[in-house]
Amino acid sequence: MVERRILAVGSVALDTVRTPFGRVKDALGGSATYFSMSARFFSPVAVVAVVGRDFPPRHLRLLESAGVDTSGIETDQGGRTFRWSGYYDFDLNTAHTLKTELNVFQSFRPKLSEMHKRARHLFLANIDPDLQMRVRSQMRNAAFTACDTMNFWIENKKKSVLALLKKVEIFLCNEAEARELSGEFNLMKAARWMLAKGPQLVVIKKGEHGVVCVSRNFVFLAPAYLLEKVFDPTGAGDTFAGGFIGHLSKSPRLNLRSVRQAVVYGSVLASYNVESFSLERVAALKPRQIRRRYRQFREMTEF
Amino acid sequence: MVERRILAVGSVALDTVRTPFGRVKDALGGSATYFSMSARFFSPVAVVAVVGRDFPPRHLRLLESAGVDTSGIETDQGGRTFRWSGYYDFDLNTAHTLKTELNVFQSFRPKLSEMHKRARHLFLANIDPDLQMRVRSQMRNAAFTACDTMNFWIENKKKSVLALLKKVEIFLCNEAEARELSGEFNLMKAARWMLAKGPQLVVIKKGEHGVVCVSRNFVFLAPAYLLEKVFDPTGAGDTFAGGFIGHLSKSPRLNLRSVRQAVVYGSVLASYNVESFSLERVAALKPRQIRRRYRQFREMTEF
Repeated sequence: MVERRILAVGSVALDTVRTPFGRVKDALGGSATYFSMSARFFSPVAVVAVVGRDFPPRHLRLLESAGVDTSGIETDQGGRTFRWSGYYDFDLNTAHTLKTELNVFQSFRPKLSEMHKRARHLFLANIDPDLQMRVRSQMRNAAFTACDTMNFWIENKKKSVLALLKKVEIFLCNEAEARELSGEFNLMKAARWMLAKGPQLVVIKKGEHGVVCVSRNFVFLAPAYLLEKVFDPTGAGDTFAGGFIGHLSKSPRLNLRSVRQAVVYGSVLASYNVESFSLERVAALKPRQIRRRYRQFREMTEF
Repeated sequence: MVERRILAVGSVALDTVRTPFGRVKDALGGSATYFSMSARFFSPVAVVAVVGRDFPPRHLRLLESAGVDTSGIETDQGGRTFRWSGYYDFDLNTAHTLKTELNVFQSFRPKLSEMHKRARHLFLANIDPDLQMRVRSQMRNAAFTACDTMNFWIENKKKSVLALLKKVEIFLCNEAEARELSGEFNLMKAARWMLAKGPQLVVIKKGEHGVVCVSRNFVFLAPAYLLEKVFDPTGAGDTFAGGFIGHLSKSPRLNLRSVRQAVVYGSVLASYNVESFSLERVAALKPRQIRRRYRQFREMTEF
């Protein structure tokens, strides 16, 4: 049997979010949280992160009861949990940040246990690229490493982001980040620019407009699953990454077929995520619902 | 054999356009022009429109040499040709209008010959909805009628637009028009709102983000063909409509399969159109190039 374990390093956070349809305060969030709650449908997932003394134990229990290995989530008694607050207008594709409090993440130095180091797949969610690199260098046997980043690091630590690109097989980013990092407005040119920096695969997330996935040998385009009700897009990108990396972890290598299917699984998981605040919808999801929407996705796009 | 002739009523214009990649002055344009130069690859097309005394004869010859029936294009010696001038920034999805001169279109009253009235398919490109209705009512034997519109008519003649929707089988519009007409931000809700007003099929064009096609029984989503070079998006929507209606004109009825394939043919034609100013690329196109890009489109989207 293929060793399938995935290690995810990123944030576990408390989010305060307002959308045209409601609001939520200090809800469970964070890139590693969304990723792992999505990837767990495909393969065993462990999270490495830090929370503060104020982190509600029920959130850890939610992850554990979903089968996520939380042994790598340390509690820093000296500080408060990472917090993000923001809002979305009717154009739900754009997040407006009100406040980011790094708190315990300011001094976070990820430490991997021997067991974590033996995971077969690594996902470096959006944190300081120097920390991402520190984790990457501890994982010598990973079949592949995927990473994400954000505009803040592209603007402030571009050299570190580029150094990291040399060391990962898969790079995920959104449209604006692709343009900012490459200096190319055209997404195809931006993708080729990024491929030249190292990764085998570049995945550009366009939110409600779908995904563009480019390697040296192929291009795959997927629209987003069309929903009548989008409630809260927070975490959609990391939930996509969870379904994407989750499906890839089950296949022996990154081939055209597995990558295409992985994009669709990622899109399906993301479509469920945006139907509720926080993790509500994805936490309650059943594998048969994922399979059903995967089939619907095919019906909506096949010609 | 299925009677396949298509009648297109709309504008034949002279466009002055600037993009980040160049500029062009008084180039051949207009909704009926783009539509017919695209649809002619599928079925015989006739155009009903008006031009002014300043319209260069070489433009008419271009249409004729492409097989388009121009007998319905009248020349109004009392005025100048309809003109549009505008520009695009790097975000090529948004047209900025500098000036619209209706000229001979101000007094245009479309007259259909007996031969034109016997066409099997009707495309009402974006003109005054009262004129669109006047044409529609002269075509008693059409297998289907498709129409397009624009924000100007939605804002100024909404009642006429809604009356027209009752009389057409296919309604094409862009994202912003769908939202403005329906008052719904969500595109799925907007599509359902429009379907309730009459048409069997609503096609929402999202430019570089693809197409959403909704009927009472199905949803079809297509990304746009990803290009490394987009030169000038003018006419992309009407070129899409040409490929879309063109393909549908070849099939005996509007079924799921023909509609899906038609969306892809429309997308393929539009992708060629944006690779040059005016009609340059589409005028020189060969059927085998259309077939090739159609196959590539499948390779880029199938999973």
